[in-house]
Order: sequence, then C-alpha cells, then structure tokens
Amino acid sequence: MKKTDELKAWKKTAEHFENIKNLKLKEIFHYDEDRFERFHIELEGLIFDYSKNIFNYDTLAYLLELAQNRKLEFGIRDYFAGAHLNHTEARPVLHTALRAGLGKGELIVDNKDVGETVAASLAAMKSFTDNIHNGLYKGYTGKTINHIVNIGIGGSDLGPRMVSRALRPFAPSGMKITYISNIDPSDIRKTLAEIDLEKTIFIICSKTFTTQETLANAKTAKSWLEINVAPDAVNKHFVAVTNNTDQAVRFGISEQNIFGFENWVGGRFSLWSSVGLSVALYLGWDNFQSLLEGARLADEHFKNTPLVSNIPVIMGLMGIWYRNFFGYSSHAVIPYSEDLNLMPQYLQQLDMESNGKLTDSEGRHISYETVPTVFGASGTNAQHSFFQYLHQGSEPIPVDFIVGVISNSVGPGENQHDILVANCLAQSEALMLGLTSEEAKANMVAEGLDENEITRLLPFKTFPGNRPSNTFLIPQINPKYLGMLLAFYEHKAFVQGWIWYINSFDQYGVELGKKLAKGILADIGKQKVGKHDASTTGLLGHYLNNRA
Amino acid sequence: MKKTDELKAWKKTAEHFENIKNLKLKEIFHYDEDRFERFHIELEGLIFDYSKNIFNYDTLAYLLELAQNRKLEFGIRDYFAGAHLNHTEARPVLHTALRAGLGKGELIVDNKDVGETVAASLAAMKSFTDNIHNGLYKGYTGKTINHIVNIGIGGSDLGPRMVSRALRPFAPSGMKITYISNIDPSDIRKTLAEIDLEKTIFIICSKTFTTQETLANAKTAKSWLEINVAPDAVNKHFVAVTNNTDQAVRFGISEQNIFGFENWVGGRFSLWSSVGLSVALYLGWDNFQSLLEGARLADEHFKNTPLVSNIPVIMGLMGIWYRNFFGYSSHAVIPYSEDLNLMPQYLQQLDMESNGKLTDSEGRHISYETVPTVFGASGTNAQHSFFQYLHQGSEPIPVDFIVGVISNSVGPGENQHDILVANCLAQSEALMLGLTSEEAKANMVAEGLDENEITRLLPFKTFPGNRPSNTFLIPQINPKYLGMLLAFYEHKAFVQGWIWYINSFDQYGVELGKKLAKGILADIGKQKVGKHDASTTGLLGHYLNNRA
Repeated sequence: MKKTDELKAWKKTAEHFENIKNLKLKEIFHYDEDRFERFHIELEGLIFDYSKNIFNYDTLAYLLELAQNRKLEFGIRDYFAGAHLNHTEARPVLHTALRAGLGKGELIVDNKDVGETVAASLAAMKSFTDNIHNGLYKGYTGKTINHIVNIGIGGSDLGPRMVSRALRPFAPSGMKITYISNIDPSDIRKTLAEIDLEKTIFIICSKTFTTQETLANAKTAKSWLEINVAPDAVNKHFVAVTNNTDQAVRFGISEQNIFGFENWVGGRFSLWSSVGLSVALYLGWDNFQSLLEGARLADEHFKNTPLVSNIPVIMGLMGIWYRNFFGYSSHAVIPYSEDLNLMPQYLQQLDMESNGKLTDSEGRHISYETVPTVFGASGTNAQHSFFQYLHQGSEPIPVDFIVGVISNSVGPGENQHDILVANCLAQSEALMLGLTSEEAKANMVAEGLDENEITRLLPFKTFPGNRPSNTFLIPQINPKYLGMLLAFYEHKAFVQGWIWYINSFDQYGVELGKKLAKGILADIGKQKVGKHDASTTGLLGHYLNNRA
Repeated sequence: MKKTDELKAWKKTAEHFENIKNLKLKEIFHYDEDRFERFHIELEGLIFDYSKNIFNYDTLAYLLELAQNRKLEFGIRDYFAGAHLNHTEARPVLHTALRAGLGKGELIVDNKDVGETVAASLAAMKSFTDNIHNGLYKGYTGKTINHIVNIGIGGSDLGPRMVSRALRPFAPSGMKITYISNIDPSDIRKTLAEIDLEKTIFIICSKTFTTQETLANAKTAKSWLEINVAPDAVNKHFVAVTNNTDQAVRFGISEQNIFGFENWVGGRFSLWSSVGLSVALYLGWDNFQSLLEGARLADEHFKNTPLVSNIPVIMGLMGIWYRNFFGYSSHAVIPYSEDLNLMPQYLQQLDMESNGKLTDSEGRHISYETVPTVFGASGTNAQHSFFQYLHQGSEPIPVDFIVGVISNSVGPGENQHDILVANCLAQSEALMLGLTSEEAKANMVAEGLDENEITRLLPFKTFPGNRPSNTFLIPQINPKYLGMLLAFYEHKAFVQGWIWYINSFDQYGVELGKKLAKGILADIGKQKVGKHDASTTGLLGHYLNNRA
C-alpha cells in the first residue's frame, strides 16, 4: 500500500493548506453566524464544538478524502469485528467488546465467543464487588473491607487511577482507594505505614504477573501483611488481575480471587476489563456499569455515524491537520474540572504510546510526523501556570477544553461553578480572538495610561489570536459521560494511527530500556560497573561509590 | 540591539549545526572514553552529566559565543544586583535575595535595604512557624494546629505544593497539608468536608488579595468556619500572604497574621518568600532554612562560575541548541522519584510562563522559536506510559533525568531503590544507543524466533537512538538539594530568556482571558448571552439553558 504522504488526498490537502494557511478564524466567524450550528455535534446531550478550528468546508472535504484514501470505514468495521489489527503481535483489538453487551454467538473471534467470555468476566467482577459492598466478603480478622489498594503500573494503573479520581464524588462514603505504581519504595512505604491492613484489599494488577515494579511492590506489601496481620492473611487480602494464574497462585493468591482478561485487551485500553476492578470496588457496580454504558454509546456513534459527523473522526482529522500540515508539535487538553486532573496524564499514555511510532504498518520508515506531545492540567489552575505559552508562545498549540454543565458536588461555594464555566469559555474565545494593537491601545487608554506608557507596553499587550480549540460541553462529569469521553479519545487515537498507517496497539519502544535496566541492576548487584559508554559508566560508578 | 537571530554567533552556530547535525553520540562515545569526565559538573556532591547531548567542543564554543554576543555575564550580574530586568513592569527581579543571607547595607535597591527587608520577613515567618510547631499558637478552641490548608493558585500554589509533596518524608509526624487552588468548587468542598477545623490553619495566598479563585475559595472556607466553629474564629484560623494588607484586614484576618512580600518577587519564583509559609509550617523552620541554603549554593555557583562550567548556563544553552537549531519542540523532565511527581508541572509553569513569549525586549516580533513544551512524569511510571514516544516517536525529545543516590525512606522493599536507579540510568543509555537492525536481529535469534518472524518484526524492533539527555545524580532528594535543583531550573529559564532576548518576568499573556471571563460571567449573571462569536454564543446559550 502507498505510504500516507504518497496518497493523492495528502498532496491535495497540502496544496489546500498553502491556500488557506492564513485564514483568520475571527474573520470567518464575523461572516458566518451559523458556524457553530454547522460545526458542532451533539450526542446524548453532550456537545462537541469544533467550530473554533482553522478550516473551511474544503478542508473538511480534503481530510475526509484522506480518510477514505486510507479506507478508514473499513478500518472501523474491522476494529469492532475483531480483525488482527495489532498485526505485529498477531492479535485483535477488542476493548470495545468489553462494553458492547454482546449476546451469545454475536461475535466469534479466533474461534472463541467473545460475548460469552466478557459476560463471564463481568459476572465475576460484579459478584466480588457486590460482596465487598454488602459486607459478605470480610478480611482475615473478620472486618469489612473499606480500602482498596491497587498495585499496577502503566495501563494497569493510570486508567483506573484517573477514573477513580474523576468519579470520587460517586464513591460510597467511607470507601477509600490508593494506587501504588512506582518502583520507588517511597510510594508503597507511605501507604503501608498509614493503612488499616485488616480493612484493606490489595489488587495486584499485571497481565503477565512478571512486571518488575508491580511484583516488587506486591512482595513488599505481602511481607508487611504477613508480619502485621498473619502469615496466612494473604489469601483474604490479595486479589490478582492477570492472565498468569499459575504465577499468581504461586504468589499465594487463592484461585477464586484471580480475575483474568484476554490478550486482545491492550494495557492502555484495559480499564474496561477486570483491570478496572479497583474502579468497580471503589465506586460500586452500578457506577462501573454506567461507565461501560457511556463508552458503548460512544462506540455505537463511532461505528455507525458518517465520517463527517463522527466525533472521534473529526477529532482525529483536526489533529492530523495541525500536526502534519500546520506542523504544530503539541496538543493540550484542559479539563475544567479538578476531578479530571489526571486526565491529561492518561491521554499522554493513550495517544503517545499508541502513536509514538516511526515505522509504518509495512515496516517502512515514516517520513511525516506522527503523534504530537500531549500535555495539560486542570483549568482554572493551568491558566495561572502555562497559559501564557498558549496565548503568546512562539508556536500555536491546539487545545481541547472539557467542562461539565452541572457540578458534581454540592456544598458551600455556590456560584463557583459558574465562574469555572465562564473561564473555560473565555479561554477558547481569547485564544481565537487575540487582541490587536488597536484593541490593546484602546484598553490602555481606558485604564488611563499615558501615551509614553502605551507606546512602550503596546507590543507586549497584543495577542496573535487565531489559536484553535475544541470544546466538550458535557451534561455532567459522571460515570456515563466519562465513559463516553474516554471512548472518544480511544477512537481518536485509532483514527490517527490508521491514517498515519501505523500499528497503534503494540509498544516495542519500551523493551530496550527494560533490557538495559537488567544489565545495570546486575552490575549494582555485583558492585562492579560492566561495559557501558563513559557517561553510564561514570554515573553508575558514582552511584556504587556513594549509595548507602 | 540586534535581534538574537541576527547575532554573528547565531549564524555561526547555524552553519556549525549543518556540519554536525548527523553526529552520532554512540560513535563519539566509542572514540572518547573521557567524555563523561569532560562533560559533567559536580557541585556539593551533586552530579550534572550533560555528556549524552549531541555536541562537540566546537558546539560549546559557538553556543558560549552566542551567550557572550548577548552579554550574558552582564545579565547575570544585573540579575543579582537588582537591575530592573522586568522592564515592562519596571521592577527588579530579586528572588535570589530571598535566600542570599544578605547583611544590612549589602544590597540597596530602589533606595531600600533588601537584606533588612528579607531578614524581617524571614524572622516573622520563623517565629510563626516555631509557635505552630511548639504548640504556643493555638486554634480558637485551644487546640494545637496540625493541618495547614493553603489557598492560592499559580505561583501561590504550585511551588509550595510541589516542595511539600517532594519533602513529605521530612515533615514531622502528624503534620498534614492540603493545597486548594481551583475555582472548581469540588476542590474546596472535599477538603472542608474532611478536615478538623479546630486544628486547621488556612493560609490565603494572593499578592493582590484579589485573585478570583483564591478569594472565592477563601470566602467559602471562611463561611464554613464561621458556621461550624464560631463567627469570630477567623482571626485565629486564617493567615494571609499578601501585599494588600488593607484588603486582608477587611476580610477579617488579624494584622499580626499577615505576611507581606516585595513586588520584586514574581509569582513563579515566590516559594522562597512568605509564599513559602505553607512549606515552612508543614516541614518546620530548619527544613525551610535548608531549602533556602541549597538555593543559595546554586545561586553562588551561577553567579561565580565561568560560563563553560556553569550548570544553569549549560542547561540553558543545550535547550537553545535543540529548540532553535535541531528544531525540537518539546522537552521532557523525568524525576525518578515518586516524591518529585509534581516537579514536571512546576517546571511547566516556570519555563513556559517565563519564556512563552513572541515579542522581544524591544517590542519586536520574534522570528525564532522560544520555549518548547515542557512535560514529564515520575519514573519509572512514565516508562510504562509515554516512553514509547521518547524511544520511537517521530521527533526526538531531549530529556532531563533526575535521581537521588540515597532513598528518602526506610522500610520494607529494601532493594527497590537500586531498581529505580538502574532504570533511570538504563533509559538514558537506551535513548542514546538505540538498537540497530543487526542488534535487533541478534536479539530475536537469541530468543529463538524463526526467520520469517524475524523479518516481519525487525523494523518494529529497531530504535533510532541518538536521543539526548541530561542526568542529575543527586546525593539525596532533601531540602538542601531540592533547593539547589530548583534554583538551577530558575536560572536556566533566566539564561534562555536572556539569550532569546525576552522579558522572562512578566506574563501579560494571561490578561485577555481574565477580562473575557468577566464578560461571560456577567452574561451568566444576567441569564442572557451578550455579543460573542457564534461558537461562544452557542456554548454559552447551551450552558444557560441546561445548568441547574
């Protein structure tokens, strides 16, 4: 197949870019009062507004042609149908099946009934969750469990951690959750020193049950429990989420406390599987169910909606437009919600691990840019941090704004949610409008500055504007809409990977570091620096000479 | 003065870049066993290794010439001497004076004795801190204070928040701290619902005492305290850090509980001033003192060391080399320390708010790139998230690695710190070395893969390598070394801003959004959409029709 930048539509888009690259959003809006009407999509009361992007109908046509050149519609069909899209690892990619509510026989993949497998896994999770919540499942000393400690890393940590943080207002009162991921011992030690072990359940979350960090932390927690509660307390206080049952049993976890998942669930897409057990235990089954249901609604939309009014397709295409044609290198995500403060980190993994690739699906080196740097922080906090860079930095950074119509919490501070929303809308407005020299001057005159001051300050008080953004205006940041939102972003990553013609579902880029770490750890064990470059030798030597 | 890209050294550096842009680090190291010796700097036992950058002696010479063309040495002198480097706001930039231990008469700026001012401010902070810690200062109902709640945003939040998190192992047992910043009411409500008000002190941290978020949260906390403790409990439980004493008094804070700071302390550089009160209260005075002392040692180094062996100068120049000559658009910071997990966010503000500018110091539009996107997360977590992108993404991202020789915590999990360090060193090694097709093939042969499989997978299992990094190997992440590290980054931002010829100390880019937010909030108050573009009108209309 052709490389993406050899496709006809790519070249046409590039030519089109030359013609409209100086388009000014402010002017377009000035002459088009219906632009919002035309360029927003509503789904279940959720609004996705992409009208503040630098494009016109022609752009959309070229980008859609690009998607068609790459046969995106077939890609979407194959994605849901369980084709081996993860071709390097020879696996289907079926996280969508985890939330599809498939009946028996509805989807057979590699001779297995996917619906049946998923239903069994959900039933096991539900039963365990209900037993924790209704108090039937008790700890070793007979106490009810009210603290979940999830030990995992990467996909076995970030997704569930972010969702638990985001939906904290929905957790039953008294239920607590802690996520431990880092090999840095301070992460686990702090937790162990503070928790009530008798009321705690540890979830060891590792597909292979061999992840270095997770196993080290699990062993540390296990010895602590053995010493402080009882040598045989492990089988009451440990649960495993893994495909490696043997290893988990050898670790001491009782077989009925082991939850498996399929190899067609990639780590960064796994929060919908039993990897989400911590979320279910923390929030209760109904909330976890609503999360799945929200994602399913987004899946249906993605699968069944024409590309031109398909939210993840538009998200993906706009990203490609900026990355490959404007050449913008970063993309910011700013949720105006303190509860969503981990979402940017989650999306860093989702986007950058999926599409941080430079080899195309036929093994050819890629000559165009792939995924940009994704970063962000919660608004309004970020306004007081790096928004200077968004408004007046040398390179424009497209932004996704996310905000909920209804606040999740009641209590004092009643009008604060209005202020939050006002700030969110004002930022996309400000980025787009900018401030001309004349406007800045008029402002300063109004403030009563004298002419010298105005002349001196004017260049610093103007804003280039024309900086694009999307806005998600969401009825409420609740399980259902969070599920939808996350599924949109998963599919956006899919769309981009498909068009860049890369495998979004492997991650070979992390292997080399793992391998070299083993070598260095062996050196540390031997107290002797092996063969390395002079820098590594120097640093390692210094460590060996100075460590405790 | 000349624009930076018109300087002679800039052009020479650009020519030099063309000659060496294909330099391979691996080969340089192969032929140079002393590269680490030559290209690392040691200060107080801290190692800054910059040998894994793509440069040679000539590069260093050109970059230093660039610094000299821009008269960096004079800049550094003026910076410490209190010249009005923040020229747009007509102010000196003297956060370094906060930790200099200046004697009376040593530094007179704008007719004021800076040393005296700082000493008085520190004495007030020390006395208050000691009184909280020795229990002399009590709450309204006579209880000892053990919970600090800092209400601030941006510079009045991120720095102290990050330091408190980083140095948590040094806090006296039983002392707790919470930072509230977001206008999102869920931020403050969660805290108010959980704290023991009688043992809590609120610090309201706002230079002007008018910051929208901070004042809204402060009012919410105040009413809560009045209802739940007593109408006149405020003067015992509230402290202000502000320059606007009148406003703070009007709010109800007693005058002896108000801590001022000078207008030559910029928000993002303010953690060393009374803005750091939350840190002092949480960690105790000796630890806060050590933090200042560490920063002072870094200041002395920066002020007195020749440019070629000056840590912040090298950091700054390498950043410029990648941003302006290689054209790399992002910079990652990966602290291998869970306690430093907020440091990347802190550096986002420090770098991106300081140098996210496109107007030079003479008001001319800048035609070269300024600050890159700064992002990061703690290692090893980040390895399981976006490291795929660092290893095999389409654009190289220079990385700063940070790791401590001695762990901060004792407890179970003894060898975990060795694993942490091994991973850190392995990553910089892996990014630099990459993996050639031959090496990848040999690995797969060793794993027993058949020839077809090897051919199929080979392109995906190779790594381009030659990806640069710095490594900070620090004796321990303790108050002293954290102070040094943060001061290095402050000065790095200074060096870059100086060479880009921008004012790193203002932040006009945040004003427009604030202004527009007021307009939108007024619309919400009136339940009527005013005059906006179609997108803002559409979104705001939807909000007004659907909010609670």
